[in-house]
Amino acid sequence: MRSTMQEGQLTLSRLVDYSRRVFADTTVSTWNGAELETVTFGQIGDRAAQFAHALAKLGVAPGDRVATFLWNNDAHQVAYGAVPAMGAVLHTINLRISAEQAVYVIRHADDKVIVVDATVAPMLARYMASTPNVEHVIVANGPASAFDAPAGVTVHQLDELIAGEPTSYAWPELSERAAAAMCYTSGTTGDPKGVVYSHRSCWLHAMQVCMRSGMGLAQGDSVLAVVPMFHAMSWGIPYAAMMAGAALVMPGRFLQPEPLLAMMAAGRPTFAAAVPSIWQGVSAQLDVVPQDISHLRAIFVGGSAVPHAMIRKFDGYRAPITHGWGMTETSPLGSVAHPPAGLDDERAFGYRVTQGRILPAMEARLIGEDGSEQPWDGDSVGELEVRGPWVTGAYYSPDGAVADDSKFHDGWLRTGDVAHITSDGYLTLVDRTKDLIKTGGEWISSVELENLVMSSPAVIEAAVVAVPDEKWGERPFVLAVVKDPADRDARKHRAFLAATLPRWQLPERWAFVEEVPKTSVGKFNKMAIRASYAEGAYEVVEARD
Amino acid sequence: MRSTMQEGQLTLSRLVDYSRRVFADTTVSTWNGAELETVTFGQIGDRAAQFAHALAKLGVAPGDRVATFLWNNDAHQVAYGAVPAMGAVLHTINLRISAEQAVYVIRHADDKVIVVDATVAPMLARYMASTPNVEHVIVANGPASAFDAPAGVTVHQLDELIAGEPTSYAWPELSERAAAAMCYTSGTTGDPKGVVYSHRSCWLHAMQVCMRSGMGLAQGDSVLAVVPMFHAMSWGIPYAAMMAGAALVMPGRFLQPEPLLAMMAAGRPTFAAAVPSIWQGVSAQLDVVPQDISHLRAIFVGGSAVPHAMIRKFDGYRAPITHGWGMTETSPLGSVAHPPAGLDDERAFGYRVTQGRILPAMEARLIGEDGSEQPWDGDSVGELEVRGPWVTGAYYSPDGAVADDSKFHDGWLRTGDVAHITSDGYLTLVDRTKDLIKTGGEWISSVELENLVMSSPAVIEAAVVAVPDEKWGERPFVLAVVKDPADRDARKHRAFLAATLPRWQLPERWAFVEEVPKTSVGKFNKMAIRASYAEGAYEVVEARD
Repeated sequence: MRSTMQEGQLTLSRLVDYSRRVFADTTVSTWNGAELETVTFGQIGDRAAQFAHALAKLGVAPGDRVATFLWNNDAHQVAYGAVPAMGAVLHTINLRISAEQAVYVIRHADDKVIVVDATVAPMLARYMASTPNVEHVIVANGPASAFDAPAGVTVHQLDELIAGEPTSYAWPELSERAAAAMCYTSGTTGDPKGVVYSHRSCWLHAMQVCMRSGMGLAQGDSVLAVVPMFHAMSWGIPYAAMMAGAALVMPGRFLQPEPLLAMMAAGRPTFAAAVPSIWQGVSAQLDVVPQDISHLRAIFVGGSAVPHAMIRKFDGYRAPITHGWGMTETSPLGSVAHPPAGLDDERAFGYRVTQGRILPAMEARLIGEDGSEQPWDGDSVGELEVRGPWVTGAYYSPDGAVADDSKFHDGWLRTGDVAHITSDGYLTLVDRTKDLIKTGGEWISSVELENLVMSSPAVIEAAVVAVPDEKWGERPFVLAVVKDPADRDARKHRAFLAATLPRWQLPERWAFVEEVPKTSVGKFNKMAIRASYAEGAYEVVEARD
Repeated sequence: MRSTMQEGQLTLSRLVDYSRRVFADTTVSTWNGAELETVTFGQIGDRAAQFAHALAKLGVAPGDRVATFLWNNDAHQVAYGAVPAMGAVLHTINLRISAEQAVYVIRHADDKVIVVDATVAPMLARYMASTPNVEHVIVANGPASAFDAPAGVTVHQLDELIAGEPTSYAWPELSERAAAAMCYTSGTTGDPKGVVYSHRSCWLHAMQVCMRSGMGLAQGDSVLAVVPMFHAMSWGIPYAAMMAGAALVMPGRFLQPEPLLAMMAAGRPTFAAAVPSIWQGVSAQLDVVPQDISHLRAIFVGGSAVPHAMIRKFDGYRAPITHGWGMTETSPLGSVAHPPAGLDDERAFGYRVTQGRILPAMEARLIGEDGSEQPWDGDSVGELEVRGPWVTGAYYSPDGAVADDSKFHDGWLRTGDVAHITSDGYLTLVDRTKDLIKTGGEWISSVELENLVMSSPAVIEAAVVAVPDEKWGERPFVLAVVKDPADRDARKHRAFLAATLPRWQLPERWAFVEEVPKTSVGKFNKMAIRASYAEGAYEVVEARD
């Protein structure tokens, strides 16, 4: 039997128009290092239309990729609106990936246009020799001269480019299944993998963010979105804010504790979102210079597990932490740790430290080592697999070939996380199937790092494992065997890596041994290495800049 | 460019499974006249599976219609889960429509099975001679003998029918566009018209109910759903409760002020939903027997305009009213009157008395008498037209023929409401297109006049209709219910209005009655009032200056 309901496509142009009209006065503020510079959703809507006209003049057609190389700021919010609404695809490039990875994703996504913050324009300019697909670079928050254009790339200045363009645009009618945005994850070994969000998945996810089981964003909220707009769509906040009429407070490039606390004092946000390492820093700063942050009705924390002590500390600030779990592949919200109603504080705490309750639209299952589905009993562990309307079913492949099918299992996404789930749906991650290092919300592949360390002629073999770090959650620890005792010099090896890796990936902790422990089949025994490290069995050398 | 997202069908079986699993202990309580009888979402889930097995054995196949002739109770909640989840279509029959209309809708929907409350089984039995399509009747909340079965109809008792059936069911994989439920509207002249909701529309609407811009339902809420489950899907509460884990308090057939207040005292709900006339009665009862109802964080009121005085009165009870607008054709939520943030109470009040802000997924436009679109300026009026993913695009037609195309306009639903909308999206209904009073070439809004008459402390309720007038074409006629017989004084009420209205708008014709006639869904039955007036059935008092 057929329903009589209208087709009702969930397309993001609707959010641009809606927020511009009914939340015309709601503010979007960006920290400039000294104060908040404020525009409104009305102005964002005007600029989105102008930007779409400008992009169309540059030849951007439906389906074309328009990339951003931007911090969280109002220009980025304009791009979030304009690019999908006009039918193009917003590719948010992570500012923190290596040059090699950046070149890879720009080529792989076949970006035609890149919008770049003036502050990072020199970095982008260095990639351009290797990215012939890029035709236009648009500099935001600074002059066009900030970008040293190679031949074949036309440079524009954002404000100049859109000036004079009409402030309305006849957005095309799109299928809600059309691509809206893409984000690459470097969470696995090998090349980064692209996830292509649809209008539908962005829209449904934004509704979940506005539901009380999500972040409960609503008009009257003011959201400090520290989580980068280049990382998993800033956890859905940009679209949810447009849907709900929540004001935005954007940190720009100022992600250190002092400016974050300054912008909190200035903007008095009611809600904030960032990875644990950010809050670790904020808390350390609050120990030095106390400040009332109780204007935050909630702090949403994800990206890696929140230490229990941090939750208690922020409870003390009357700015309670809500813990959540997700991945770039899951848009990202998969579970949120709102405790069941009616519990006393201590019992509720037991729920708040989990990765959270699986959300209604998200299906989850645990697959044991023998391939069988494990019960939700709060005890049985298995690899977490998920599916749902905002979960990716594949990685992007320009030629339609299947990319890394090993991550999917009968239509479910294999998360690579080993977990258990309680009977009432609360997820706890206990380990990872692969030995990735999660540091400050970003991934380092231990395998890649090992390979790089071992690429030095001085090194015989080297294993890398994740070790706990108060500030970053995890950091890499390198256990190396060198040829010459004179090469037991951590600073030297670190300098070797610095030629290839971004600074945040460089390991600080090193130990030199005669042999790396191995399993019976000759693989590095990482469990044993982690255990020995924890016991203090290694003579650890610290190398920092 | 294609998105990589999973298909992710939004089907209601997911909500049955989810609520059963993660909200297993959340309660669904039904008032039995003396106390609340409580089951859990866990038990509802078990019974939904059992009921699906039983229906399958009766021959119910995907797409078949299974009707309910039930009050709000746990059996109805089971049917809301089981019937759509198994791929059949839930047809909720309004218990208050005429015999003729009931027979019409049972035949038109081609119901194969009807689940009936024992208390209304005799009423249903009388229709059966005219509804040869019905094969099975299942009696809930009483013995099978409550239903006097005609030849050709097999009678079952619900608990007996499902006893022993398995408590799990392999729900079929369905398209989210498949029919899930249907509801007939009798809001227009002529035969009732059917709206067929899809799994998708029910799911998206439930998300909106859980969003803070909707009702903000969440775990910890306990919802007194007075609005019937046979009327516009109880405003989406049954599915939203399953999604959010909100407990339900169901009134059964006890819809009078005393039992409603008794079940509030017993269940201490945090949220309640009903039409204004219910709250009018509750308020009158609270005047007699005071009771603390401040456990209600919000009362959601829709179905007809809420008198300003009622909002102030419930503010006084610390149980604030949230006003909303919708129709059976819109699932029903179309707009909700959460005021903008940051206003003082009086300015906020000005927003709270509107029909509310148009919701993000709902598109609205105003079409003026000349067919042109009117601006959103809070002043220009036009017929309200809406479209969106939970708006019907047609009325149900068994043979696929178009039913009442006049209600649709280029893919938009014509609501029949005359309205204006502010620039920030707040809707105010001025009247029904057919209820405006045209007098001496000027328009009078019957709704505004009603609100003003009801703002007098002496008046319990009042309806205004247009009646013919030789001199002016039409004039308003007021049918009022007053608290004190001494207030049956038209001159006094006219004088009250004269403080606000221009003289030409003051009604001359008044009648005082014990109760204003209402439709099956509790709205003023203006057709009946006009007919009675024409027949001279009212004792009309003339009041002039």
